[in-house]
Amino acid sequence: MIESAPSARLPQTWKLTLAYDGTDFRGWQVQPGEPTIQGELQAALGRVSGESPLPQGSGRTDAGVHALAQIASFALLAPIPPANLHRALNRTLPQSIRVSEATTVPSTFHARHSATGKTYEYRIFRGEVCPPFLARYVYACPWPLDIAALQAAARVFLGKHDFSSFAASDPDLATRSLHSDPAAPAQDQPDTHTTVRTIHSSLWEQRSTEAGDLLIYRVRGNGFLHHMVRNLVGTMFDVGRGHLRPRDIPAILAAASRSAAGPTAPARGLFLHSVEYGGADAPAPEQQ
Amino acid sequence: MIESAPSARLPQTWKLTLAYDGTDFRGWQVQPGEPTIQGELQAALGRVSGESPLPQGSGRTDAGVHALAQIASFALLAPIPPANLHRALNRTLPQSIRVSEATTVPSTFHARHSATGKTYEYRIFRGEVCPPFLARYVYACPWPLDIAALQAAARVFLGKHDFSSFAASDPDLATRSLHSDPAAPAQDQPDTHTTVRTIHSSLWEQRSTEAGDLLIYRVRGNGFLHHMVRNLVGTMFDVGRGHLRPRDIPAILAAASRSAAGPTAPARGLFLHSVEYGGADAPAPEQQ
Repeated sequence: MIESAPSARLPQTWKLTLAYDGTDFRGWQVQPGEPTIQGELQAALGRVSGESPLPQGSGRTDAGVHALAQIASFALLAPIPPANLHRALNRTLPQSIRVSEATTVPSTFHARHSATGKTYEYRIFRGEVCPPFLARYVYACPWPLDIAALQAAARVFLGKHDFSSFAASDPDLATRSLHSDPAAPAQDQPDTHTTVRTIHSSLWEQRSTEAGDLLIYRVRGNGFLHHMVRNLVGTMFDVGRGHLRPRDIPAILAAASRSAAGPTAPARGLFLHSVEYGGADAPAPEQQ
Repeated sequence: MIESAPSARLPQTWKLTLAYDGTDFRGWQVQPGEPTIQGELQAALGRVSGESPLPQGSGRTDAGVHALAQIASFALLAPIPPANLHRALNRTLPQSIRVSEATTVPSTFHARHSATGKTYEYRIFRGEVCPPFLARYVYACPWPLDIAALQAAARVFLGKHDFSSFAASDPDLATRSLHSDPAAPAQDQPDTHTTVRTIHSSLWEQRSTEAGDLLIYRVRGNGFLHHMVRNLVGTMFDVGRGHLRPRDIPAILAAASRSAAGPTAPARGLFLHSVEYGGADAPAPEQQ
């Protein structure tokens, strides 16, 4: 009689698309004793599969920052049909975190390393009194803003630049960003060693909703430094209020110093809109 | 020399229109040590005016229930221009409570006693995965619902009925409602001694929003018993799922017993939409 070999089943790599309201979380990254998106997801995976891999995000979002489509990857040994994992996670996760898609992907896929681009939105409420149902998801900007000047400033960021004037100045974060620890990346892909990023599109749009008029900055690039979108927006606020001119921005970029740029816009207005993978997230072939 | 008389200024009665996200509050009514809308508003009035009248609401909303236009009344001695009170309150209130209007009204106006009608909305999310940005403001109803049956059930409530089958069965609340303590009303105007109310309109509508498709029950009447809208909706859910027929509802009304009706729908979907005053809230003449 031939003994059966121990199970040789390989772990299956998963890609999850997540939407979350970041208001009540201390950001993406797991922190002992604090509610975080990564921590909630790890705990939910444990309840559903009996395994507790630490899911990797496409990047960290800060406390209070939201996601329309954050991407997470991890591997599980348990063979679970995607529709079942999807349903089971949504049943156990808090309602402020939703899985919108769950797919199996090749083992080479990694939510952060495989990312080739990202889009963020920053949402501003423009009315007199911000409806309480919007307050968690917008920055209620109290000043008049020169939209044409905002638009002109946004165009200056297009292309390849050293964005170090727009990277977080927190010394702890700066150290982390310089050492590019893969477990605690302070910067997005693709290049964690430099502060050079390429911005593919950068523009402001006005959007009317049932709840009121929003002004939205949408930026797409190959990666973003820590706090970069909020720092771009804070600097553009200075332009929109007339404290800076769009033509002052090249000198701010050239200064390569955080103190040259404007303030950091509040987290509540920021949404990770989407992440691009250039095909690296194609569905995995069925496991045999 | 004639001594000047002590100030004979009369208190000015105020009417505020409030919108709030009820999620993080223990309802309207002030409770020691608990966050409530009435308590937050009283504290804000104290910070702004130095006076701390207890504002009267058009009715209590329960924990987790929201308001698009709740009405509050109170009197202040300090002469404050309405635009200033409006701005100052919004500066000091939490962002989840907003004053959308502040006007002076005749001293005969009382937010609850003067009310002649109210409209509520109950909002249901109908998609597969409820976006986290909607989750606080809808009930994500997991079952298929027969819309025509819901609509037929809603029509049965039109007109004048004894709604005691749809009033909260909580014994403490029932006692309070029987004694109609004006400081802690468990029922809405106009008649706190009976369980008879008149419903002027009662219908379901579908509304498409950027975040997804909603199904909304909108009901307008001369007053509502405690939990009445949530109990009407919970009973209509039973109809929409095929567990009850619209023609079973007259017998439920006739039973005059809470146990005859369906469950209480979750608070998160309920909005106080508006309050009517039949002219009793006409602006006050300017004080001399």
